[in-house]
Parts: sequence; C-alpha cells; structure tokens
Amino acid sequence: MKTLSEAFEHTLKDIYYAESALTKALPKMASAAGNADLKAAFTQHLAETKEQIMLLDKVFASIKVKAAGEKCDAIEGLVKEADGLMKEASGAALDAVLIGVAQAVEHYEIARYGTLREWAKDLGHTQAHDLLSQILDQEKAANAKLTGLAVKTVNGGKAKAA
Amino acid sequence: MKTLSEAFEHTLKDIYYAESALTKALPKMASAAGNADLKAAFTQHLAETKEQIMLLDKVFASIKVKAAGEKCDAIEGLVKEADGLMKEASGAALDAVLIGVAQAVEHYEIARYGTLREWAKDLGHTQAHDLLSQILDQEKAANAKLTGLAVKTVNGGKAKAA
Repeated sequence: MKTLSEAFEHTLKDIYYAESALTKALPKMASAAGNADLKAAFTQHLAETKEQIMLLDKVFASIKVKAAGEKCDAIEGLVKEADGLMKEASGAALDAVLIGVAQAVEHYEIARYGTLREWAKDLGHTQAHDLLSQILDQEKAANAKLTGLAVKTVNGGKAKAA
Repeated sequence: MKTLSEAFEHTLKDIYYAESALTKALPKMASAAGNADLKAAFTQHLAETKEQIMLLDKVFASIKVKAAGEKCDAIEGLVKEADGLMKEASGAALDAVLIGVAQAVEHYEIARYGTLREWAKDLGHTQAHDLLSQILDQEKAANAKLTGLAVKTVNGGKAKAA
C-alpha cells in the first residue's frame, strides 16, 4: 500500500468486512437487550447496516473495484468486547454496557467513514464521496439515538432502583 | 456485573488498560510517521496519555477503588490494526493510514469517556464526572488536531504527487 488510492481501497474493504461482521453481531445484541426500545434500535440498525452494505457495493462499483472484505482487526476486537460483555453483564448493567459498546462501534464507523469520504474527495471520486457521506450521516444519527436511549434507560433504571 | 456501579468500574478498568496500551503504541506510530508535524503530534499525545493515566488514578481514588487495568479487546484490535498498517503501508499511504487509525482510536476513547462521565453523573460521582469530562475534552481536541493534519498532509502529499 503506497498511494492514497491504495489506502482508500484497503480501508473500504476493511469497513465492508466490519459492516458484514455487524450483521452477525447486531441480532445477538438485540436478543440480549432487556429494554424494548433498545431491542428495536438494534433491530432497526441491522436493517440499516444491510442497506449500508448495498451502498458500499455502489462505492466499489463507482471506482471499478470488485466489492470484497478484508479482515478488520478493530471490528474483531469490538465484537469480541461486545460478546464478553453479553456474557459478563446482567440486570441493570446489561443494557447500559450494550449501549456503551454499540456507541464505541458507531464511533469507530464515524471515524472510518469520515476518513474515507475525505480521501474520496481528494481522489476525485465524487460519487463515492456522496455515498460515503450518506452512510456517515446514518452512523451519526444511530449514535445520537443511542445517546438518547442511554439517558432514558440508564436514568430510568436508576430511578427505579432509587 | 449487575449494577451500573459495577459497569462503571469495569469500563474504567477497560479504558485504563487501553491508555496503558497506547503508551506502547504511540512511540511506534511516532517513529513510523513520515511527516514531522504528525511525528510531533503523536509524541505530544503520548505525553497527554501519560497525564490521562494520572487523571484516571484520581478517578479511581475518588470512588475508593484500587486503580487497575482489565484487558480491553477493543483496544487490542485497534492496536493490532495499527501494527498491521505500519507493516503494509509506505510512502504517501503511510501517513494517511496512520492518521486514519489514530482517529479511530480517538473516537473509541471519545465514545468510552462520553459514556463513563454520564454514568459518573448518574451515580453521583461528581469528582469523577469532572475528571472524565476533562479527559474527554482532551481526546476531542486530539481528534480535531488529527483532522487538521490529515487535510494538511494528505492534501500536501497529493499536491506533490500531482
């Protein structure tokens, strides 16, 4: 990997792998969540993730590269963390840590799509830039929704416990 | 882990481990970076990371828990990704991917400190909330600085290549 163009392609394959990994992790998180709104949020984000994979297919097509994933160590670590938390946490802690780790995943994606869309612009890939910006906005909205749920469920849990 | 208090303690140990891991990763990133400003930014963030570990010691003291790290799978994955990129990338791609992965790390920390300081507030840990907010602000500033460097070095690299 020597040029920005190669870095762009590599990171695109990285996030493609990451989104695919999330289609497997999100159903487990939805199933583990106790709060109904949180369950619904994970299920909705699963549908959104599948749509994002189709948008990434369009990004690959726009730069005439075959869509493919490349093992992404960061998402492997994040999913491993989520798996560990689902085993270790229960009760009031479970939804709180699930929201926390989901926000860590969203932030990972926000960082990656933020970088990718700027590189796309630098490389003159206008269509890729627009598609990546669209996904970035979705990830930011998903993160904001989780913040809202955190306030509601964590505070709710505390109020009940108090 | 059943209560929010236990979730807070667990995640605090998690980020303590993460910051310690970064004190080992950042010197390698500084050494690999080609751009002098980027090298300086990584070296400066190393000093900041050491200071943040001391602030975390204060957070632990404020809740009367012994400061300790607990293996954090997410940071292990992020550091593994950084190590891989340092091996695979060279030339114009290297600084670009180094900034990209450093921003992914910053975003991970922003997510974690954002969650931790809200939990601290919910739990009535005022001093911990203030200290964690201070670290959160530093991480946001570090991320903004990296965005500035990305614009400067990636665009600069491209201009030279063009």
